[in-house]
Amino acid sequence: MCKIKEKALKLANKKIAFVGSVNENNAPNIKVMVVEKHHGLKTFYFTSSHSAMWTEHYKRNFNACLYFNSVPIYKGLMLEGIMKVFNNDDLKEAVWRNNFINPFKNSVVMDNPDYCVLRFTAKKGRYHNWFKTEVFEIE
Amino acid sequence: MCKIKEKALKLANKKIAFVGSVNENNAPNIKVMVVEKHHGLKTFYFTSSHSAMWTEHYKRNFNACLYFNSVPIYKGLMLEGIMKVFNNDDLKEAVWRNNFINPFKNSVVMDNPDYCVLRFTAKKGRYHNWFKTEVFEIE
Repeated sequence: MCKIKEKALKLANKKIAFVGSVNENNAPNIKVMVVEKHHGLKTFYFTSSHSAMWTEHYKRNFNACLYFNSVPIYKGLMLEGIMKVFNNDDLKEAVWRNNFINPFKNSVVMDNPDYCVLRFTAKKGRYHNWFKTEVFEIE
Repeated sequence: MCKIKEKALKLANKKIAFVGSVNENNAPNIKVMVVEKHHGLKTFYFTSSHSAMWTEHYKRNFNACLYFNSVPIYKGLMLEGIMKVFNNDDLKEAVWRNNFINPFKNSVVMDNPDYCVLRFTAKKGRYHNWFKTEVFEIE
């Protein structure tokens, strides 16, 4: 793995993502979400609900981005890609983590018909370090 | 000012904004920017450059959002609105702050033809506190 991707992965491992979507008026939206599971820089899983505003956005327009930042804020990683909504029981079970904070913590998750999984697949990355930006493809 | 707007203002006063735009492929983009100046929850000014990717986005589609978060991340403020690009010398002079970090810190700013000002005007706010969200209009 090249050096820039190693640095990017350090930020992605923080698991707190600023998640971007586009709404029905062609306007951007940002939501902070916890990454439940991820495979390197390629795929990221989130728990969500069908009724959530941003889930509706992705059903209409699957374009998405994730932003991970360092504290203090001078390094940042932007991943461009697509977000798909899943309602498959096996995936829902696999992504579910009882030990983590999520919007369903007080209910039996698999019994909640509103629960769904969002899977982000990255195509391209942008690593910002101060005023320098490096762009890379993600295979 | 109602209580929710007071709480929202505390987050906006942090001056580090996650700024959302929509690109030419109808995909979202997020960039971290320093708020150079703002008036309450209504208007926010940023220094930028005409050649920056996100400036191009706003020239094509002025829809924008700002996200401010607390550390640890369980409170957040999303402002929906529009972003306009300005090249007016008086505004550029007023927004410019020599004592702050910005992409032109090593040059004479007013001599740099690439320098421009972005002004965000908010229409609506969403204050997230744990799993509760309160929505309010901004006059």
